[in-house]
Amino acid sequence: MDKKIEALQLKAAELTRESHALGIPVMVVFEGVPASGKTRLTNELLLTLDAKYTHFIATKTPSEHDLRYQFLQNYWNTLPSKGDINIYFRSWYAHFIDYKIHGIKKSTFKHYDKLKAEIHAFESMLQNDAHEIIKFYIQINEEKRQEHINEMKDNPLTNWKAQEYENVIPSDVYRQEFQHILNDEWEVIDYTNRTHAIQHMYEHLIARLEKAIHRHHNRKKKINGAFSEPFSTDIFNVQIEKTRKSDYDALLLSLQLRLKELQFALYERKIPLILVYEGMDAAGKGGNIKRVREYLDPTGYEVNAISAPTDVELNHHYLWRFAKDMPKSGHIEIFDRSWYGRVLVERVEGFATYDEWSRAYDEINAFEQMWVNDGAIVLKFFLTLDKDEQLKRFKDREQNINKQWKITDEDWRNREKWDLYLEASHDMIEKTQHPHAPWLIVPADHKKSARIEVLKYIIQKCEERLWGVKYY
Amino acid sequence: MDKKIEALQLKAAELTRESHALGIPVMVVFEGVPASGKTRLTNELLLTLDAKYTHFIATKTPSEHDLRYQFLQNYWNTLPSKGDINIYFRSWYAHFIDYKIHGIKKSTFKHYDKLKAEIHAFESMLQNDAHEIIKFYIQINEEKRQEHINEMKDNPLTNWKAQEYENVIPSDVYRQEFQHILNDEWEVIDYTNRTHAIQHMYEHLIARLEKAIHRHHNRKKKINGAFSEPFSTDIFNVQIEKTRKSDYDALLLSLQLRLKELQFALYERKIPLILVYEGMDAAGKGGNIKRVREYLDPTGYEVNAISAPTDVELNHHYLWRFAKDMPKSGHIEIFDRSWYGRVLVERVEGFATYDEWSRAYDEINAFEQMWVNDGAIVLKFFLTLDKDEQLKRFKDREQNINKQWKITDEDWRNREKWDLYLEASHDMIEKTQHPHAPWLIVPADHKKSARIEVLKYIIQKCEERLWGVKYY
Repeated sequence: MDKKIEALQLKAAELTRESHALGIPVMVVFEGVPASGKTRLTNELLLTLDAKYTHFIATKTPSEHDLRYQFLQNYWNTLPSKGDINIYFRSWYAHFIDYKIHGIKKSTFKHYDKLKAEIHAFESMLQNDAHEIIKFYIQINEEKRQEHINEMKDNPLTNWKAQEYENVIPSDVYRQEFQHILNDEWEVIDYTNRTHAIQHMYEHLIARLEKAIHRHHNRKKKINGAFSEPFSTDIFNVQIEKTRKSDYDALLLSLQLRLKELQFALYERKIPLILVYEGMDAAGKGGNIKRVREYLDPTGYEVNAISAPTDVELNHHYLWRFAKDMPKSGHIEIFDRSWYGRVLVERVEGFATYDEWSRAYDEINAFEQMWVNDGAIVLKFFLTLDKDEQLKRFKDREQNINKQWKITDEDWRNREKWDLYLEASHDMIEKTQHPHAPWLIVPADHKKSARIEVLKYIIQKCEERLWGVKYY
Repeated sequence: MDKKIEALQLKAAELTRESHALGIPVMVVFEGVPASGKTRLTNELLLTLDAKYTHFIATKTPSEHDLRYQFLQNYWNTLPSKGDINIYFRSWYAHFIDYKIHGIKKSTFKHYDKLKAEIHAFESMLQNDAHEIIKFYIQINEEKRQEHINEMKDNPLTNWKAQEYENVIPSDVYRQEFQHILNDEWEVIDYTNRTHAIQHMYEHLIARLEKAIHRHHNRKKKINGAFSEPFSTDIFNVQIEKTRKSDYDALLLSLQLRLKELQFALYERKIPLILVYEGMDAAGKGGNIKRVREYLDPTGYEVNAISAPTDVELNHHYLWRFAKDMPKSGHIEIFDRSWYGRVLVERVEGFATYDEWSRAYDEINAFEQMWVNDGAIVLKFFLTLDKDEQLKRFKDREQNINKQWKITDEDWRNREKWDLYLEASHDMIEKTQHPHAPWLIVPADHKKSARIEVLKYIIQKCEERLWGVKYY
């Protein structure tokens, strides 16, 4: 073993023990044409790092199963947790080229610029959250590359694998596409000389890890604050039609049955539907969701009621727990509270720093955009309540033996911060209101009217998408 | 709304809040021919329970993706965590019938009796671990059932769904198969009268939850103990051929290259390989694994180095974290420590009760058998070390700056319990030694010989499976 390489291995191992201990998530990307040496380099690195926190993630051409999910789904699902190191054998870049050159979902993505923008947003939000992304592009002398391929072809046991090599993305196409991707974020390694390539990889990795560790130690403690800006509550002053008691049952049922039909239509057209509920405590989110789901086919929808994060969730990027529960094509996912917790409870209670929650609006917009790009309908409901009406409902819950479990000390504590929550809600709606992922503000003082309002809106938006019907 | 049903809903909700608080995992299975009322009953139940800890799991006919995994894989992956409630819309039983009547992997499973035994073992080990499994079989008057189907057919939006109904498993075949499955563990519900059916479901559910909660409170605190039985250490007295230093490099490389070829052969034949490493601290597991993986293609293998369980893992059945990382067809999974922790560290340190670890031998045997049934090669290595040699290696680690991180106070504490670990290891090997999932005991005082021994054994076992070669 080359003494120099051995020293580099030891150094890399040492630094990754440190980045692990510090909780820095590290993502190491290997791209390059088939038979360029990616396999040997990634395995070299794998052998050096501690398997306890190192993961290997390979990108293959998407199966039918994969295509039912968002373009970046697999990368969301496998994000490293704090202190872990993910090694990507091909990455979202090869995945992008695969989509583009094979025209995957072309009618959805057109020129695939959206996907490029997604990749940019994905990396940016991870980097903002202290993820270290290290990207290698491996090149090799073409003669040498053919030697590698021939070695495999000559062996009857590996011959089939050699033939697979060029099948998915022809090397020249891949190489050409990568010319538009490569920039100074990439470290290009020439594998023509194996020993130099290994040295080069370790040297760059070490430099990057040292920087990341240095940055970690110098990160300023972020201050909370920037509250109590003047803002207007006009945004919440919405009127909805009041449903008469005598009309309610029949109207509700007809809307529910219509929604059930639409569920099948969405399924057939493979359109995912994402419903997000936020709102003041006791505004009736649960009861509203119950009416939406009441007649749906349970094999096609899921309710994700968000509780406090688990340890494992806390150790990941805050969007991870939501991303991995997004619906596949044709399915409906209902979030009872959601990623907006970042700019609501986490902002108000100081669980997120000013820096974290103030950049979260853009991150959330980019996040929702990814599913919208993939054809999802995203609808967001904010249920508002008069402060006195909330008090009445809290008291009612305390007195009703079947509702007591719904009211906790936390609810009373949140109520004391009414104005802070109001401001956070105001900012959230203002900064994340988009035609492709709209907020509907629903006054919920009258629960039945609120349910009818939400159901009508969902139906309207689904019909618009399905058949281009417009309501004005 | 029927007052009686409303009262039952409230009671069921209350009891599930209690079972949730107590950490009892609940699994509710719904089986029955298509259009028998399963959908409506499961959705009724879903609406009553708290979405925070209720999950809906549907069984569909397996996709190509699913077929790359073990028969029960999806059910392992989605096991409820403590206090959660899983509702199964069709279950491992429909899955079993699907396999059987469509002859899925028939050459592997023959008469499918193995799968029946797997289901029995699966349920038993969950029940032993306090999972409450409640099984409903839904029946309906055939005339009424045809009405349901016709309703769907008449609606252009749901028509395609009605046609899907009978496609996967014809109703009469399903019904007939279920006659061999139904026993007194099943509650048969007649859905001909909807209101009665709902009442029936709740009444049975309530009775079962009450029993489960009662059992929980009456569970005896288990005592640890049953240690220091006399046992012989003969089992560890194994001799292996000593590799000469001058032969080592060339021999190692030739075995590694052979294993790489076999990796491709296993991939092509879709045979998963599961390698389990256990052994005394500092016996050289890491270095041994490194030599095994050194030339493998990283896209086809993974090393799973087991650390202390996360909170999420602790909240699941102890086999869950391992089951979900088992390899798919043609892949290799290497476990650096494994499920055997249950009968080693958990036994010795008292993390598992006597009752838990003493029944774990059978559970582990059944667990491994499931992957063996599905065609996996399972090989287990126990690396032994002389007590003096361990001391020498510990000291060496303390003195070598690049190895210091490997030695912790815990290692020294474990060393003090040498005899207890020896006894636990002895019992483990004696009770889980099987021809289909054999232990190889490897004296590791001489590391190089141990590596050669393991590589030879893996190669031999793979060749036997691939081409029926036998070595004697």
